[in-house]
Amino acid sequence: MTREIPDIVIGRLPIYLRELTRLAEDEGKINTSSHELGKRLGISSAQIRKDLSHFGEFGKQGTGYHINYLIEQLRDILHLAKEWDVVVVGAGFLGHALANYHGFLHRGFRISWIFDSDPAKIGAAMGDLVVQSIDELETTITANNAKVAVIAVPANHAQEITDRLVSVGIRSILSYAPIHLNVPEGVEISYSDPVIQLQRMTYYL
Amino acid sequence: MTREIPDIVIGRLPIYLRELTRLAEDEGKINTSSHELGKRLGISSAQIRKDLSHFGEFGKQGTGYHINYLIEQLRDILHLAKEWDVVVVGAGFLGHALANYHGFLHRGFRISWIFDSDPAKIGAAMGDLVVQSIDELETTITANNAKVAVIAVPANHAQEITDRLVSVGIRSILSYAPIHLNVPEGVEISYSDPVIQLQRMTYYL
Repeated sequence: MTREIPDIVIGRLPIYLRELTRLAEDEGKINTSSHELGKRLGISSAQIRKDLSHFGEFGKQGTGYHINYLIEQLRDILHLAKEWDVVVVGAGFLGHALANYHGFLHRGFRISWIFDSDPAKIGAAMGDLVVQSIDELETTITANNAKVAVIAVPANHAQEITDRLVSVGIRSILSYAPIHLNVPEGVEISYSDPVIQLQRMTYYL
Repeated sequence: MTREIPDIVIGRLPIYLRELTRLAEDEGKINTSSHELGKRLGISSAQIRKDLSHFGEFGKQGTGYHINYLIEQLRDILHLAKEWDVVVVGAGFLGHALANYHGFLHRGFRISWIFDSDPAKIGAAMGDLVVQSIDELETTITANNAKVAVIAVPANHAQEITDRLVSVGIRSILSYAPIHLNVPEGVEISYSDPVIQLQRMTYYL
């Protein structure tokens, strides 16, 4: 894995991609500029140009960026040309929300399986899925060569689930459990904890 | 609002607070060190000491940090000594998950109201709450002097809801809508979009 390009730059590419998609699909625009994009995102146009320059020359002096072309390029860079199958572990309220969320569509991901250990939940329908037993976690991931997982289990089970996911080849994990998780080198992990985000803001109140 | 301390430092304080709470409550520890904390969080001990030094002298050479004392100090710094009432807008699957999430407890926040515009949802029980009409949004916020809100509505309604929240004094917003939102100076906004997080990781796959 090469880390020549700063993580923070990689982290902004999905934001650009989302806004470009909005410009094209919701507003029917054909071209945009780093200035317009920056203004819409609260990011400087210089920053956007610098970020994109890591990957090539996507715009033209004067006419700016052809939106659909830049979308395709960003999707390639972020490895979104195909759809990734996503494993969700935990079929509580949050797992339920994830299974029913339409925001994954056309953005490179598809929730393909949802697992739980609770016999009362196993077999229940959730979105278009049926909750599977956590006992089938490893065999399902292995059989389908899945690489991406979302953890929606309580904090006290999250590390154990992480270890199980990693042991069968999961390489990208988004965790909603409010706990720091240990993963080996080569596995990416990202966290979502609403309280952490809220606490960061109340400092300014 | 003073911005003398970098946002990124403020952003790490809740992570320290969460891990310290885990050390104290789940593991019964009394003292810790920047070394131990750093090892558990994958952050260097020097970084932790530097971050905390912005706010005072919390540890002692040799014995490290008294955990409960540091917890109290961090809660004060982040303005969590009292519990903030949180407004949730949107009573879909995600709003439902938020209303039932116990992770806010004892961490400075309480979901106090949940609003929706769908007549089929208004009046329904969610967690300990009853879904209120979006028509009551402004009067409820004003009457209770609420400052913190969570947006769980579709992208195409999120800016309108943001404007309404800000107009009656909301100052901290956590948005789950997959769109960049404009807020005036003095209002903090934070985003949670699982696809953005996943896309950032697939770059490395």
